[in-house]
Amino acid sequence: MPSNTGSLVPRRTIGIGLVGFGTVGQGVWKHLEAQRADLNARLGIDLDLVRVAVRDARKPRAMSVEAARMTEDPFSVVDDPRVHIVCELMGGTEVAREVTLRALRAGKVVVSANKALIAEHGEEIFRLVREHGGRFFFEASVAGGIPIIKAIREGLVANRFDLICGIINGTTNYILSRMEKEKLPYETILADARRLGYVEADESLDLDGVDAFHKAGILAYLAHGKWVDAEHALVQGIRKVTLEDIGRARDFGYRIKLLAVIRRDFRSGWLTVGVYPALLPLDKLLARVDGAFNGITLVGDVVGAQTFVGRGAGQDATASAVIGDIVDALIALRDGGTKGLSAADLDFLDRLGEGVRMAEMHEIIGKFYLRLTLADRAGVLADVYRVFAEESLSIARVVQYEHEGKGTGTVTLSTYETSELVMERVLAKLRALNTVLEEPLLLRIFTPET
Amino acid sequence: MPSNTGSLVPRRTIGIGLVGFGTVGQGVWKHLEAQRADLNARLGIDLDLVRVAVRDARKPRAMSVEAARMTEDPFSVVDDPRVHIVCELMGGTEVAREVTLRALRAGKVVVSANKALIAEHGEEIFRLVREHGGRFFFEASVAGGIPIIKAIREGLVANRFDLICGIINGTTNYILSRMEKEKLPYETILADARRLGYVEADESLDLDGVDAFHKAGILAYLAHGKWVDAEHALVQGIRKVTLEDIGRARDFGYRIKLLAVIRRDFRSGWLTVGVYPALLPLDKLLARVDGAFNGITLVGDVVGAQTFVGRGAGQDATASAVIGDIVDALIALRDGGTKGLSAADLDFLDRLGEGVRMAEMHEIIGKFYLRLTLADRAGVLADVYRVFAEESLSIARVVQYEHEGKGTGTVTLSTYETSELVMERVLAKLRALNTVLEEPLLLRIFTPET
Repeated sequence: MPSNTGSLVPRRTIGIGLVGFGTVGQGVWKHLEAQRADLNARLGIDLDLVRVAVRDARKPRAMSVEAARMTEDPFSVVDDPRVHIVCELMGGTEVAREVTLRALRAGKVVVSANKALIAEHGEEIFRLVREHGGRFFFEASVAGGIPIIKAIREGLVANRFDLICGIINGTTNYILSRMEKEKLPYETILADARRLGYVEADESLDLDGVDAFHKAGILAYLAHGKWVDAEHALVQGIRKVTLEDIGRARDFGYRIKLLAVIRRDFRSGWLTVGVYPALLPLDKLLARVDGAFNGITLVGDVVGAQTFVGRGAGQDATASAVIGDIVDALIALRDGGTKGLSAADLDFLDRLGEGVRMAEMHEIIGKFYLRLTLADRAGVLADVYRVFAEESLSIARVVQYEHEGKGTGTVTLSTYETSELVMERVLAKLRALNTVLEEPLLLRIFTPET
Repeated sequence: MPSNTGSLVPRRTIGIGLVGFGTVGQGVWKHLEAQRADLNARLGIDLDLVRVAVRDARKPRAMSVEAARMTEDPFSVVDDPRVHIVCELMGGTEVAREVTLRALRAGKVVVSANKALIAEHGEEIFRLVREHGGRFFFEASVAGGIPIIKAIREGLVANRFDLICGIINGTTNYILSRMEKEKLPYETILADARRLGYVEADESLDLDGVDAFHKAGILAYLAHGKWVDAEHALVQGIRKVTLEDIGRARDFGYRIKLLAVIRRDFRSGWLTVGVYPALLPLDKLLARVDGAFNGITLVGDVVGAQTFVGRGAGQDATASAVIGDIVDALIALRDGGTKGLSAADLDFLDRLGEGVRMAEMHEIIGKFYLRLTLADRAGVLADVYRVFAEESLSIARVVQYEHEGKGTGTVTLSTYETSELVMERVLAKLRALNTVLEEPLLLRIFTPET
């Protein structure tokens, strides 16, 4: 059984193998080749770009690699004794998982941009890190080039985080931003995003908030030591948000963004993680994060609020994060040191996670936005008001829109602060009214400090 | 002669000494005491808060430290063999310099928040780091709790930075923000800032842009390997910015912020560093950074634009950064490793700096805002236009304001892109007109990517 002290064997010649040679992989290779001499001089090492595993060696690609360094067998990269750092950039969670686990079992260092793999198999991955003394780096898995994981783990290590919230899926932010700016419907912009290759092959990952939830899960683990299942979280995508909602939110002084929200109450011990379209006041920094950009606001108990904004994806932003990780991995291998999550870090996160429980619905307090489609006849609003009154929930603002000639009308309203539990009860009663014609759309109103 | 390999002696019991026990020092001590058990467990060390040097041991203070651990002699902290990390939080550049150099000569690790010291004596400090194998950490010296130094050095290490610009002096940002929001004149808000203790004892540091220039100098060194003197930089404070300028900038679609700007042209090799009040388009992220907050936008050649926003100063924000550095120092001491700027890093920065020259005035291109006080008579504007025409500089927008009954008028205008050289020639000619009654106010218009 290998040592679990967390030490690596110090070495000067360090080999890197790439598994996956798509856009990001080629970007990493390109920048590593360009910067190799600098890195060697700066770090006092001899960096060897050993091998690349591709899906189809004969496929033409922008970035050429000599045939001798190319293989179609990802495991041959992992098993190559000259490879100390395995860079997994193939995506997916099956072969990628096997590649990752095999490298970690060999005590190697793995650099990964694979948020789905980490979110779904993080516990297994980190258990192998602990058992075999390897390392796992994953800065590129969240928020593209923004060094948010390093900030949480190192720069802001003095802090406990009451709140981490952000826009961490570029595709949905691109769609919502263009809908708002160009006043075009969801389907039109989605078609564009598809054509531009902005949407993952499995569209649900982007559009239903799954990808953002994967990333939120990683941040929640790093900040609170707990892996949160989707069953214990609200995960809601952008499919039901209409151009009208965007316009009405704007009338209320808000913009609609797909937000990942991680809230922790250190007094009661609860944690809540969610992904949902939320209304952000126009003057907040995150409300200004448009297009393919990502933005994250952290509130630490020592430092207060901080916001980080940058490109969330794309070849170069992701390559920047991967190379940042590779440099940390090189230093760890050179010194036999403990950069990256070590066994001691993982023990610490375990202890941190022990004090955490998932929040109950009555503990999660917020303001809400509601869109109701109502029969267009006398007394319908009185019914709605009565439901709110019964639950002692105050309405902050109501706007009624007529649907000419259709016999229906739309009412949008915002509430004062209440719990998710009360809001759920209100929603159940509204659904039961026969004057409420469609499933109501409920969005959360979110007001971060900055 | 001590080794210059950059290795520290690995140890488990690590002692910290604090020099300076004002607001920040007490904040650091408080948080370190609170987090000591966690840090010990997480890092596998035994952290010893050895000694604190205060100016006056009998002075009552919010944070109490037992008498045995308190001294009025800063050097006794440095010389204590149990102290491995000297945390210099006293400020000033005389005793602080002696304390820092003495600690580094002993091969110790120094953690510093002292931007003036680093900007003025950085070369000497880093020479001693290299000669004696110690370490120097200084995250808290720039932008309070924002881990910007770590981002530049580690997370974004793949990048060369074409642009680093930001709001990095909280005092002037507080003053400008309140002037704009409350429509009160400079002197009124300055008096408030003084009363609240927001202005440094030497007011020129804040108001004339010197503090921001110190911080810009540190960032320029880290990004480009060159220490820039004030003689080779434009350093301009906020004293000449009036409430009227703020209002007129707003009419033009801009907000006025005191910006530090570090621009590099990698093709021509030039670098320019400046601090000056600048007009930022309202929709840019930095234009939304208000009050005591700091914000920095970096443009890296790989990652693109990133923006970081957070509290720029204050007990807790600074303490957060200091503790982040202390944790890195603890890891370096535990592992005998090379966190912080090592000799190899400094060699790398030296090589980087060799390729740098300061930009000539004709190479620095930008747009400008100009406020002219003119005699209120026929033909004055024609004279102004003629000057611009002679220098082939196009005016983008002009607004003329009457000064009722005073026989003078104010004209504000913005230009299209031109060089600092052309703008200087235009300014010299305008000054020479006898219809230009006061020294013109020239502000730069700055449009970062995000």
